[in-house]
Amino acid sequence: MDFKEELSCRSAFFERSLRTFCEEERRRIPARLREAMNYSLLAGGKRLRPVLCMAGAEIMGEKAESVLPMATAFEMVHTASLIHDDLPCMDNDSLRRGKPTNHVVYGESLALLAGDALFLDAFETALAGLLKNGAEPQRCVRALALFAQALGPEGICGGQVLDTDRASQTDERDFVVDVASMKTMVLIRASLCAGAILAGADGEALRRLMKYGEKVGLAFQIADDLLDCTGSQSAMGKTLGKDEAQDKRTFVRAYGLDGARALLHEKTLNAEKQLEPFGEKGEFLRALAAYLEHRSN
Amino acid sequence: MDFKEELSCRSAFFERSLRTFCEEERRRIPARLREAMNYSLLAGGKRLRPVLCMAGAEIMGEKAESVLPMATAFEMVHTASLIHDDLPCMDNDSLRRGKPTNHVVYGESLALLAGDALFLDAFETALAGLLKNGAEPQRCVRALALFAQALGPEGICGGQVLDTDRASQTDERDFVVDVASMKTMVLIRASLCAGAILAGADGEALRRLMKYGEKVGLAFQIADDLLDCTGSQSAMGKTLGKDEAQDKRTFVRAYGLDGARALLHEKTLNAEKQLEPFGEKGEFLRALAAYLEHRSN
Repeated sequence: MDFKEELSCRSAFFERSLRTFCEEERRRIPARLREAMNYSLLAGGKRLRPVLCMAGAEIMGEKAESVLPMATAFEMVHTASLIHDDLPCMDNDSLRRGKPTNHVVYGESLALLAGDALFLDAFETALAGLLKNGAEPQRCVRALALFAQALGPEGICGGQVLDTDRASQTDERDFVVDVASMKTMVLIRASLCAGAILAGADGEALRRLMKYGEKVGLAFQIADDLLDCTGSQSAMGKTLGKDEAQDKRTFVRAYGLDGARALLHEKTLNAEKQLEPFGEKGEFLRALAAYLEHRSN
Repeated sequence: MDFKEELSCRSAFFERSLRTFCEEERRRIPARLREAMNYSLLAGGKRLRPVLCMAGAEIMGEKAESVLPMATAFEMVHTASLIHDDLPCMDNDSLRRGKPTNHVVYGESLALLAGDALFLDAFETALAGLLKNGAEPQRCVRALALFAQALGPEGICGGQVLDTDRASQTDERDFVVDVASMKTMVLIRASLCAGAILAGADGEALRRLMKYGEKVGLAFQIADDLLDCTGSQSAMGKTLGKDEAQDKRTFVRAYGLDGARALLHEKTLNAEKQLEPFGEKGEFLRALAAYLEHRSN
């Protein structure tokens, strides 16, 4: 298969489902809140987390459709965390994916509430949708527990605090790995594994997918740090060199350019290795790891 | 039973459990984030939502202990919503329950993240704790769906937007009921009913408890609006007359003082009526409705 075509086909499949979800006259959501939520949800992006969630179901022999509500929930919380990250009291960013950020368009208080609403509606979307799809309750509970853990104080929120709290920064390499794990890796790993759990993954298969997710999740952040130094501004669609300007601790600063490249390659190989027992079914995830290593945006 | 003693006994039981929960060396939460979360969680309050959640389990014949993780989750999200409400870009309040608000002590960005972390950790706390207690997965999923719905764009977050969006305010009475329903009632109702669902409530029993929760939830807000006009500042522990000064639409403004009092009494009677089939087991909730009607703080 042509991997790039396959990948864009899968993102497009998710994108269509997301658009339908956003356009539904959903329940009693105040109109302005719905508008602010949809603005950021539909602002594009790689849709990596939903693609991973669907791939998790497929590698266990289930159809991608069956986990769409969970995939949507992952994109919702990822979007929510970006809206809150961009707020004036946080990174104070006015552009994201080439568009004005949520608070620039809707004001600070509505942006804050749109983020909260996306975080919380994600759980309802997953729960209601999975029940409708006839998902097994025990699997739902396990998938949601993994989802929740990736978001809270041990996950995204905790990582964000660690990243801005210079006091807790001791050894530079440990610190860079800790922040990348909490801010980026856990959600990427949870996306894949929640999809897999919903499709019945357990025991050895789940352990291997957790390891794959861990390696690919860290590799994703290493590649991001490398691209911030060496990438093409037009391909990335954002201002580069920001990490250095803000004196941020990155994999490049902790390991050097060559060291970071070597670490990225090692994580990628290790991720691919986890897929061996899956045979042909692991093909997409294998190609994805290789693709993410060499991505230019 | 002496109801006031019974109520304070139940809040104290929850308070002890919450303190243990906060003091546990919980997982890998960054120290400063844990501190900011605990500061607001342990700042007191009536603990009404956890008390209702436990009462929901008891009226169905289960022990309060069995739903403690769910009760804790309700208090966590209630606290999270207060932290976000107090932020400078929202109500910009510097005092809450006689103490400096979270952002005054920890700064705006940490307060934002502490709110996010409490919202999200609530789901993990409920999921992990209930599974440990051996809760039935099907019941967990139903209780969590109700919980999530009370929080998102149809619940607290949506109500907050509606309340600040003058454009969507048409008929004053409808509007006051809509905002009170989304901002206050749904979470109070969900607290009671999630506890009941976890203890096996279904069909007619659940329908009656949903109605009780709806009536008591609205009564709670009507009493709040009345107290803002006629209450004692020292008993309430906050500045009164704020609603009028801010030109807020309240039950008092929409119905007049006497009209609001009559509506409060009607809701309370209607709530009590729902409990008839529960006989003696409904005694605590019956006394609670009467107590909330006549509360002075």
